Amino acid sequence: MKDLPTPYYLIDESRLQQNLELIQRVREASGAKSVLALKCFSTWCVFDLMRQYLDGTTSSSLFEARLGYEEFGKEVHAYSVGFSRDDVKAVAAFADKIIFNSLSQLRQHHAEVEGRNLGLRVNPGISYSHFDLADPARRYSRLGVADKDALAEVAPLLKGLMFHFNCENTEVESICASLDTIGREYGDLLRRMEWVSLGGGLSFTQTGYPLERFCTALREFSRTFDVQVYLEPGEAAVTRSTELVTTVIDVVHNELDIAIIDASLEAHMLDHLVYRTTPSVAAPAAGPHRVMIAGRTCLAGDVFGEFGLAEPLRVGSEVRIADAGGYTMVKTNWFNGVAMPSIAVRRLDGTIEVVRTFGYDDFKRSLS
Amino acid sequence: MKDLPTPYYLIDESRLQQNLELIQRVREASGAKSVLALKCFSTWCVFDLMRQYLDGTTSSSLFEARLGYEEFGKEVHAYSVGFSRDDVKAVAAFADKIIFNSLSQLRQHHAEVEGRNLGLRVNPGISYSHFDLADPARRYSRLGVADKDALAEVAPLLKGLMFHFNCENTEVESICASLDTIGREYGDLLRRMEWVSLGGGLSFTQTGYPLERFCTALREFSRTFDVQVYLEPGEAAVTRSTELVTTVIDVVHNELDIAIIDASLEAHMLDHLVYRTTPSVAAPAAGPHRVMIAGRTCLAGDVFGEFGLAEPLRVGSEVRIADAGGYTMVKTNWFNGVAMPSIAVRRLDGTIEVVRTFGYDDFKRSLS
Repeated sequence: MKDLPTPYYLIDESRLQQNLELIQRVREASGAKSVLALKCFSTWCVFDLMRQYLDGTTSSSLFEARLGYEEFGKEVHAYSVGFSRDDVKAVAAFADKIIFNSLSQLRQHHAEVEGRNLGLRVNPGISYSHFDLADPARRYSRLGVADKDALAEVAPLLKGLMFHFNCENTEVESICASLDTIGREYGDLLRRMEWVSLGGGLSFTQTGYPLERFCTALREFSRTFDVQVYLEPGEAAVTRSTELVTTVIDVVHNELDIAIIDASLEAHMLDHLVYRTTPSVAAPAAGPHRVMIAGRTCLAGDVFGEFGLAEPLRVGSEVRIADAGGYTMVKTNWFNGVAMPSIAVRRLDGTIEVVRTFGYDDFKRSLS
Repeated sequence: MKDLPTPYYLIDESRLQQNLELIQRVREASGAKSVLALKCFSTWCVFDLMRQYLDGTTSSSLFEARLGYEEFGKEVHAYSVGFSRDDVKAVAAFADKIIFNSLSQLRQHHAEVEGRNLGLRVNPGISYSHFDLADPARRYSRLGVADKDALAEVAPLLKGLMFHFNCENTEVESICASLDTIGREYGDLLRRMEWVSLGGGLSFTQTGYPLERFCTALREFSRTFDVQVYLEPGEAAVTRSTELVTTVIDVVHNELDIAIIDASLEAHMLDHLVYRTTPSVAAPAAGPHRVMIAGRTCLAGDVFGEFGLAEPLRVGSEVRIADAGGYTMVKTNWFNGVAMPSIAVRRLDGTIEVVRTFGYDDFKRSLS
C-alpha cells in the first residue's frame, strides 16, 4: 500500500466475512433474518460480499432506503423517525416494509401506502445502553410507541413491530430477559403479527459470545408467537473489519510525547468525540512507549487517546486505528478542511482496491 | 420562501453586515486587521460581501487556504496543526503567511519556504474557554510552543507569532489582562516581530460589548511592541446572521410534547451535541407553549432542547433555529442519510438566492 497516501479507511473483506458467517450461523440456527443497518455502515463497495450473507438492509431515511434498494437489493426495510408525505410516497417505490415511528405518523401516512407491509416501532420502556445519548427508552424518548392500548387499536393496520432497544449489548442474559419481558407484555399483540424486528445493538459477533444460547432464545421467541424474527446488525456486521490508516506528521512534547496524525477524531471517528470514548490502536502493537495520539484539526480535544506502543512514533510512522468501520464513514465531515480519508478494500483474494478518494473539489462542493 | 423545501440554512447578509461593520470599526479604531477564520465559516457564497470588510482569511489546512485564496482573496494566512511536506509545498502557492504549530514543524519545513513570511503559534499557558475540549492551554495541549527559550532561538526565522487562546470570550477585561500578561512574558520577542495574531474566540461583535476599551487595548499593544495586530474572527463575524429553517414532521407525546423537525442536531448543528449545549429558537417567538424540539435521526439524543413558544407546534409548522452560521455548515455530515439542508442567502437587497441544494447523489458520493 505504499502508493496510497494516508489517511484511508481500509475495509478487510476477510474480517468482514468472519462476522457475516456468524450472522449466517444465527440465521440457520434460529431462523432469524438479518438486515444490515445502513445508519451504521453504508459503504456500498462491499455490498456484493455482504449480500451473500444478509437478507437485505434497514434504513433510517429515504436516501438510505434507496441506497439499500439500488446497491444491496434483497429486502428493504424503511424506517424513519419522521417521514414527510413526499418521503412516504418516494420510499414506497423501494421498500418491502415501511416502519413508522409513531401513531401519528402511521395515521398520517398509512392510506398513502395501503396494502403494503407496514410496521410500527414500539418503545417497550426497557433498554440496554451505556450512554444516555443512545438510550431509546430514556426519559422523553420520541422513539416508538409506549401506549399498549393504542398499539392494540392500530394492530389491524400492521404486519410487524420493531423493538429497537439495545446499544452495544454484549450480555446474552440481558437479551434473553428482555425477550421474556417483551413476550409477557406484548404477547397478544405479537401473535397478531407476521414479523418482529428486534433491532440492532446486539454484539453477537464478538469473540466468545454464547451464540447457541442466543439462537435458542430467538428460536423460542419466534415459535411462541409464530413470527418471523429480524435482527438489524450494524456494528455486529462490521466490527473489527476496518482500520483507519494514518501517518504521523509531527511529534511534540508537553509533559508527554504527542504524535499528530494526518486524520481527526472529530472529522473521521466522530462517535469517540461525542461519547468521550477512546479507540484502540491496531498498529504499532502494544508496548512500553507511552504516547498520546492526536488529530490534525485545531480542536484542542481532537485526541485519539494515550497509548503504550511497541515502538516510539516518529514523523512518517504509520498508525492504524482499529475498528473504524461502524458509525465512522457514515458521519465523516469536512471540519478544518482536513484531507478526507480515502476508502480502500482488501478483497477476499488479498488485492487492495482503492474505491474512493476525496479532493479539494469535494470539500468545496460540501459548502457553496 | 414557499418554494424552497426545508431544511435550509438561511444566511442574512444584512445581519452579517452588522457584524462586519463592527469589525471594520475595530480596524479603524485600533489598527488591528481581521482575517476570517474559515474553520468556523467557509460558506463562500457570501465572500463578496465579507471581502469588503475583512483583510483576508485564515485557515487550518491546505484546502481552507486554497478556498481563501480562490474565493476570498486578499491576505491568506495558512496555519495547520500539522502540515505534511506536500502541504507546505502546495500552500506556499497561496499563502501570504505560513504559520507553524510547533518547533519541529518549523524546523522540518522552513527551508522549503525560505524567504516567506513565517509565523509560529505560541501556547502562552493562559486561555479562556468554557469547554476543556476547546481549551488550547489545557493539559497536554499540542497547540503551539510553550518553551520561551526555544522561541527566542528560532525568532530569526519568524516575522510573526500567533496567540490563539480564547473561545467565546465575552469579557473585555479578560482580554485586556491577557494582553498585559502576553506583553510582560513575551515583550522582547514581540519587539522582534512584524505581526502578532491574537487568534479568534473573541465575542467583540455582541451587543453591548465595550468596543472602545477593546480597541484601546489593541492599539496600545500594537504601539508598545510595534507590531501589526491581527484578529481572526469566526463566530464574531457570523453571529446572529444565519438560521436553520425547518418544518415539523411529527409531534409525539411522552410526558411532554415533542416536535420532530426535518433536521438533525448531530448532522446539522454538531457542536451543540458535542458540547451538550442548547441552541435558541428564532421562530416561533417565545411564549407559554412548552415543547421539546428533536431531530429526525435515530439517535435518542438528537434533541435541540426544550422551549416555551408563542404557539403550539403542529405538523407543518415552521421552526427556525437561531445562530446557525458558525461551526455548522463546516461540519455537516450525512448521518442516517437525512436530507441535507440547502444553503440560501438573503442578499442585501432582500432577494433570496438558493445557492446550493443537496440530493441523493451527494449522499451516495460521500461514501463509495
